[in-house]
Amino acid sequence: MKIDEFFSVLRSGEWLRGTGSYSDIVISSRMRLARNIKGFPFSAKISQPQKKEIISKVDSSLNQAKFSKPLFLFLMDDLNDLDRQFLMERHLVSLEHTQDPQGKAIFISKDETISILVNEEDHLRIQVIKSGFDLPLVWDVVNNIDEKMSSALDYCFSPDIGYLTSCPTNVGTGLRASVMVHLPGLIMTKRINRILELIAKLSFTARGLFGEGTQALGNFFQISNQVTLGSSELEIIENLTSIIKQLRSQEEEARADLLLKHKLNLENKIWRSFGILQNARIIDSAETLQHLSLLRLGVDLGIIKGISYDMLNALFIITQPAHLQKLHGKVLSVQMRDALRASILREKLVIT
Amino acid sequence: MKIDEFFSVLRSGEWLRGTGSYSDIVISSRMRLARNIKGFPFSAKISQPQKKEIISKVDSSLNQAKFSKPLFLFLMDDLNDLDRQFLMERHLVSLEHTQDPQGKAIFISKDETISILVNEEDHLRIQVIKSGFDLPLVWDVVNNIDEKMSSALDYCFSPDIGYLTSCPTNVGTGLRASVMVHLPGLIMTKRINRILELIAKLSFTARGLFGEGTQALGNFFQISNQVTLGSSELEIIENLTSIIKQLRSQEEEARADLLLKHKLNLENKIWRSFGILQNARIIDSAETLQHLSLLRLGVDLGIIKGISYDMLNALFIITQPAHLQKLHGKVLSVQMRDALRASILREKLVIT
Repeated sequence: MKIDEFFSVLRSGEWLRGTGSYSDIVISSRMRLARNIKGFPFSAKISQPQKKEIISKVDSSLNQAKFSKPLFLFLMDDLNDLDRQFLMERHLVSLEHTQDPQGKAIFISKDETISILVNEEDHLRIQVIKSGFDLPLVWDVVNNIDEKMSSALDYCFSPDIGYLTSCPTNVGTGLRASVMVHLPGLIMTKRINRILELIAKLSFTARGLFGEGTQALGNFFQISNQVTLGSSELEIIENLTSIIKQLRSQEEEARADLLLKHKLNLENKIWRSFGILQNARIIDSAETLQHLSLLRLGVDLGIIKGISYDMLNALFIITQPAHLQKLHGKVLSVQMRDALRASILREKLVIT
Repeated sequence: MKIDEFFSVLRSGEWLRGTGSYSDIVISSRMRLARNIKGFPFSAKISQPQKKEIISKVDSSLNQAKFSKPLFLFLMDDLNDLDRQFLMERHLVSLEHTQDPQGKAIFISKDETISILVNEEDHLRIQVIKSGFDLPLVWDVVNNIDEKMSSALDYCFSPDIGYLTSCPTNVGTGLRASVMVHLPGLIMTKRINRILELIAKLSFTARGLFGEGTQALGNFFQISNQVTLGSSELEIIENLTSIIKQLRSQEEEARADLLLKHKLNLENKIWRSFGILQNARIIDSAETLQHLSLLRLGVDLGIIKGISYDMLNALFIITQPAHLQKLHGKVLSVQMRDALRASILREKLVIT
């Protein structure tokens, strides 16, 4: 199947629908399990034929598992650069998975909630992502997939330390649970740094929009566990849940303070962002994210009415470089993308 | 008469109506004659009773002259700070005339084209200002006023060097002729500095929006003669006319180049300015001037339609601090002015 037939470029995956609990502050909840299959070297040492063998083993384990949501296979080296970047922009693959694509693969469910990366840093990265704040549900789904697959695949597992992984930081549960949050209030009130320090002390970390090593663009953060060893999956989920609840109440407090003490200033920033999004003829990704973030805050606070979360969230996705080029049907220069992005924003950002 | 009864706060004077020739680039043409009356010390040494005597002499000379446009007298020390600043914002008095107001006066015609400052740096500063580019007309008017007044007033005059003035730079004709021009194209193409150097070589100078020592805010410049000695009035007018014609063709060339080579970039700047003016909740004077200047350029170039010059020019005037306070009916803090300014811009800047 071709990328263009599988995805609707103008729509985001389920996880960006803006529904689910805490959806004013929490964008999505996500978990991934790192797994490796016995009898094969870890990814750094593996041969191309062995990679193929793993893909086919995973494929048959999925056929055997018969999930209610079928998963579709894409071989990363069958895709072109634009397709790979497109998958990354939709948060389905990591940056690493788009680079050096030989022998790498991804299985994806149509609604984009389930994806399994094959031959990334580990043989398997089983990912589940849902909109809103619902770690228990995500855990149920990812755990169910993992259990069913394990009946056909023999995982590297030590009774003493748990699942074995390429990188020691993933040894144990192999679980990374993460929640994407939108924290413009904490950034505007300059309270964010103190809070990120506290999160680090609890062995959790705040990454940018596209995971490890990326910037916190548009006031978005992914909060996730740093440690996979020594805590059970349920402890990780419990701790992350408690951190997100704290963050939510801190962000709400910051927003309330801003409304109480700096309302006009806040409205000024939000409306200016809206004015720029509705009028610019040239705009880059980073500026777009920043203004969309403020616009989202405006919608959250009822300052701007008549803009749906669905539209806002779609704009976060479709104004990205690969999405713009998919929409346009061909490769575009940076200048042409900046103009197309501005024109799409003008067209879509109409108050209804 | 009270300032509030004389002026319509929401309207600009005739000179900002946006009519007259070259009105896309030339805002207004202006001349002032510096005159002093025999038998009195120059302003630096004059006593308060002598100042009063001069005001009354000027008043009777005006009564005798019977101009078709009657002039109304305002004593600067009868006015409060806000009134004085209001007159400065309308370009009727100089900064100097608002400071230390004792014994100073102004006579103004209802359409604000004629004003006579009494006891400024010289006893008399006879000013005429008209919208658009028409130095010969302005000269006719100012010269006619000067001649009629001179029949009742005995001016300090030397047959060898001409009119005598407080400052040697005004000796001779006592004439300063100036043209206010809007040069966003020359600023954007960075050609302005070379051109200002050329103007300086011709003994003309480019001052900011409010004359001597003020900044070139909003891409506006006042081009005027530096020398009043050794050139006749008609030579000064001729030279200034030729400079303005040159400037106009250079500005038009710059705008054409921008449209040809950087159209999208230009449109981007203009529409962003428009978006900010229509959406800001807090905006200061300098930012307002900058965006109104770009909006004016957009209207000049047909990029933005449905905004009248009349409205644009009124906004340049009424968004100034004293005008805002007059509109509001009381003294306002900087913060309150910035909010009121934004709200007036939103209300008025509606495409019709």
